[in-house]
Amino acid sequence: MSGRYEIRFSGSGGQGLILAGVIFAEAAAIYDGINAVQSQSYGPEARGGASKSEVILSDGAIDFPKATSIDLMLALTQEACAKYCKDVKEGGTLLVDEDFVHDVPAGDYNVIRLPIIRTASEAVGKAFVANIVAIGAIAAITGRVSREAVEKAVLSRVPKGTEELNRKALSAGYELVERRTV
Amino acid sequence: MSGRYEIRFSGSGGQGLILAGVIFAEAAAIYDGINAVQSQSYGPEARGGASKSEVILSDGAIDFPKATSIDLMLALTQEACAKYCKDVKEGGTLLVDEDFVHDVPAGDYNVIRLPIIRTASEAVGKAFVANIVAIGAIAAITGRVSREAVEKAVLSRVPKGTEELNRKALSAGYELVERRTV
Repeated sequence: MSGRYEIRFSGSGGQGLILAGVIFAEAAAIYDGINAVQSQSYGPEARGGASKSEVILSDGAIDFPKATSIDLMLALTQEACAKYCKDVKEGGTLLVDEDFVHDVPAGDYNVIRLPIIRTASEAVGKAFVANIVAIGAIAAITGRVSREAVEKAVLSRVPKGTEELNRKALSAGYELVERRTV
Repeated sequence: MSGRYEIRFSGSGGQGLILAGVIFAEAAAIYDGINAVQSQSYGPEARGGASKSEVILSDGAIDFPKATSIDLMLALTQEACAKYCKDVKEGGTLLVDEDFVHDVPAGDYNVIRLPIIRTASEAVGKAFVANIVAIGAIAAITGRVSREAVEKAVLSRVPKGTEELNRKALSAGYELVERRTV
């Protein structure tokens, strides 16, 4: 990879977006040797329903660790999409859940619609792994972090006994993107 | 509270330091209405044994979200203490585990030694709640976030079925500080 790359995970509280950011940052940094910062900011709106976490990747040092020009933003809910999509940069990518985000504001970014939550519920059997399905999809779209690194990071962070479920969720996320681009 | 306040949680991977940061930030922001940023940076040293996460609290907007002048740093291991204590500001506080950190580098900061891990193991019965004991101690030392907010944040983030254990760990952390200052 080259240069700075900013990813934002957004949706509602309880969808595991902080964990998704931590896993993505650890995949990049611990297993692939890329510098990473993972963060979440809570302002006056912290009691609201929309929630976000961010990851910045870079080959070099990350002097300013706040995301200001998002390369890829995930939105799992309509509210999060409306609230946060303004920070996606020109030519960036807005990845939305196709069942839960119907109204995507116009902007100079590419929009990708995938059934992330439905895939977690139906193909994997547990809606709460939607965050891991999303990680697989984002890793496939960006190509910034190796699949081996992502899988190691997922398995090191999920609760014991849920490894197979999460491995399946990750694969399902990759497949959503691979199938789409064939 | 007033002004900016920077907290660093350090120790080794697997001690739950990211979760500690997330809980502290959520206590401040979601339950007490204080602005907060929680983050971790992974650089070339990410494969090493020392691990850290940070929280910045402020009444105002947090424009620069990187900790540069630490008000309070927790070190649960000798390695983390040696690696990270240089960023504690003059007059700041270095809180170390008294059984696992024996050699505290000299500096213009206050040193507080508490048996955090031993309290988790012996008083609560599970070493893995040392991060929650530490949250209680730090909340008591700083006085920046209300106890009610901290308890709500802990209970909203720990796994179902472990609420009582974690509530006990949090109380034990507060008591370590309260007993010390009587």
